[in-house]
Amino acid sequence: MAKIVNVSPLAPAGGFPALPVIGGVRFASVEAGVRYAGRRDVTLMVLDAGSVLAGVFTRSSTRAAPVLDCQAKIGLPGDGPAAIIVNAGNANAFTGHNGVQAVQAVTSAVADALGIDAARVFSSSTGVIGEPLKHERITAKLGELAGALTADGIADAARAIMTTDTFPKGAAAEIAANGGTIRIAGIAKGSGMIAPDMATMLVYIFTDAKIARPLLQELVSRAADATFNCITVDSDTSTSDTLLMGATGQSDAGEVLADTPAAAAFYTALHGLMLDLAHQVVRDGEGATKFVEVQVSGARNDADARQVALAIANSPLVKTAIAGQDPNWGRIVMAVGKSGAEADRDTLSIRFGDITVAENGWVSPDYSESAGAAYMKQQDLVIGVDLGLAGGAATVWTCDLTHGYIDINADYRS
Amino acid sequence: MAKIVNVSPLAPAGGFPALPVIGGVRFASVEAGVRYAGRRDVTLMVLDAGSVLAGVFTRSSTRAAPVLDCQAKIGLPGDGPAAIIVNAGNANAFTGHNGVQAVQAVTSAVADALGIDAARVFSSSTGVIGEPLKHERITAKLGELAGALTADGIADAARAIMTTDTFPKGAAAEIAANGGTIRIAGIAKGSGMIAPDMATMLVYIFTDAKIARPLLQELVSRAADATFNCITVDSDTSTSDTLLMGATGQSDAGEVLADTPAAAAFYTALHGLMLDLAHQVVRDGEGATKFVEVQVSGARNDADARQVALAIANSPLVKTAIAGQDPNWGRIVMAVGKSGAEADRDTLSIRFGDITVAENGWVSPDYSESAGAAYMKQQDLVIGVDLGLAGGAATVWTCDLTHGYIDINADYRS
Repeated sequence: MAKIVNVSPLAPAGGFPALPVIGGVRFASVEAGVRYAGRRDVTLMVLDAGSVLAGVFTRSSTRAAPVLDCQAKIGLPGDGPAAIIVNAGNANAFTGHNGVQAVQAVTSAVADALGIDAARVFSSSTGVIGEPLKHERITAKLGELAGALTADGIADAARAIMTTDTFPKGAAAEIAANGGTIRIAGIAKGSGMIAPDMATMLVYIFTDAKIARPLLQELVSRAADATFNCITVDSDTSTSDTLLMGATGQSDAGEVLADTPAAAAFYTALHGLMLDLAHQVVRDGEGATKFVEVQVSGARNDADARQVALAIANSPLVKTAIAGQDPNWGRIVMAVGKSGAEADRDTLSIRFGDITVAENGWVSPDYSESAGAAYMKQQDLVIGVDLGLAGGAATVWTCDLTHGYIDINADYRS
Repeated sequence: MAKIVNVSPLAPAGGFPALPVIGGVRFASVEAGVRYAGRRDVTLMVLDAGSVLAGVFTRSSTRAAPVLDCQAKIGLPGDGPAAIIVNAGNANAFTGHNGVQAVQAVTSAVADALGIDAARVFSSSTGVIGEPLKHERITAKLGELAGALTADGIADAARAIMTTDTFPKGAAAEIAANGGTIRIAGIAKGSGMIAPDMATMLVYIFTDAKIARPLLQELVSRAADATFNCITVDSDTSTSDTLLMGATGQSDAGEVLADTPAAAAFYTALHGLMLDLAHQVVRDGEGATKFVEVQVSGARNDADARQVALAIANSPLVKTAIAGQDPNWGRIVMAVGKSGAEADRDTLSIRFGDITVAENGWVSPDYSESAGAAYMKQQDLVIGVDLGLAGGAATVWTCDLTHGYIDINADYRS
């Protein structure tokens, strides 16, 4: 029997959730002054020997040096201890050969300081693009970091990886399975797909599950497609997006094997945790005042549905209408039309929450503009589109486009 | 011998250009009160018998009823007189069966009033989506319109088709070829790919050239791909985009035949005129303060180059940086990376005008941030990207993303 005991509530208001200790993982965060002053900006996360790691990375063709290094290492065999080191303030992206050297300098120094195989040391950098990373500021702190490692340091880590985020992001899940308890805890940063001049989405998830690397990779990749790959703030994809997940195997539950109830429960819990983190990123979107779920159904297939959902979620005209609390369903018709997916004007219907707005190629006879306007005043909105063609469906999440976004992103970097 | 005598200067500052009379075309514009009060909002354009027409239309799958009607008629044979009727204020889009009936009512009434075959009567509507078109307000004015037709009414027509445009748009060209003079005159409306609550880009071009319909269609389609299909204000594609071109054959020049110097000169002049109109639309983009040319070269092929150019031109982060006069080349790297086109970070170079910003995977040793910042203060900007892979190239034009765009588009419609 397998049972999900708890997945942390979506985007908890008011403070960072209490995340469980994951046996076999320790954290330390320090002030290294990479760019920011007066705050912790470098985090070290260390996993005990026997851990396995999986990862999901940006598909950008201009990926940053740390991302390329992680991708080269993530599938390698090995069961010694592992480490992840993250700095905020500088993305070490588009920094040429200098960037590659900086990654090597940092990861080798971590390997030396902790006695870990360098092939098991992963790094992420988030911040300004195109400036050389002052890696000696990071390596100078390795002694301090190694001495400060603690099992309950995940909340500090969530804060230390922030750039323009307005709140730290964390989520947890617990599963009763295979005669024991499996715990998962995750943290993320991101405020817009790309924060100003900055870097963007980083996610670190830890579990004490016993699980083979290929199964862990399969489950985390599948969950990422349904969560982090379904959110958009501004359609701009980062050069640094990185998700790393480590499983230490220190749970008292038996191994999670493919095609078992335990694997199903583990996936469901992991998906819930990742969706929670993804929603927190959207809620912290630059300048966002609304949280919007776009549900598309009735498409020729799921890919078409996703294309329509993203066309709506990325449309500047839809997003500005939402910011203005305008039930401007004509712009949703426009976005469906431009998506490139198969659509038939005369079978299309549109909902705002439970309110039917348009159907059969025109506004619904029951729709009133005042009901639509009242609905749009809510903070959390659902836009539903049924294409009326077949069974394809997709859901994505986004926020509105406001003066706040312009303020944040039109500011000169200095 | 064929020679281009004149193509109107790009986006002339200060007033509508003097457009030549095109023999065989007459215009009339009246106040019909479709939505706006106190301004002309319906235009009738009539071409003499013997004219041929060609058209280019939005690819949106939620095209408005008038667009569908134009597409059904544009390729039909016929050489009687032809008419185009345009209203501003209501797009007659997503109006179901009612919308189809409105198009039929208007086009049949024009046919009856002028004694023209209804299959030669085209209509466009621009304005709010989803509201029934009060077509009787248009048909009530047909007598007045028919009585007011005049050969020099094109400037009034350019004003009557405006919605949120801040200035009327026109351009002209003249070619000496085949023993005579060929004249072309065009008008356009558009302020953003979609003006608030819709509307968008309408273009009407007239020439006195003798030219067969298939050749006219081929040349106008090719020129549209290189002009109107290379501009973007906000990536949102309208349900109403329509370009109609009519050739009356009343020039004293001999027929323009395919693969002749006259056809080449005609194409060059037409392309120049359409580029001028397209640039005027970008300069009038909602909230725009900058005019930006994005030049991409060195791509694997032209399609890849276009994909990269549009990724840059549509990126909210690039567009807000331009609004903030920030030489934020890291965001251009990001946009190249997300475009999906083949790119190699280490062969990529970036220019602002003549200033080399980045090359070989990193910032150029000669680049100074102060030179970049000074360049970005100009009103007209060129962003150059060379992918360093092969010979594919493309150029697109866009504007910045400002508070003005949010103001215009977040306003409630009422």
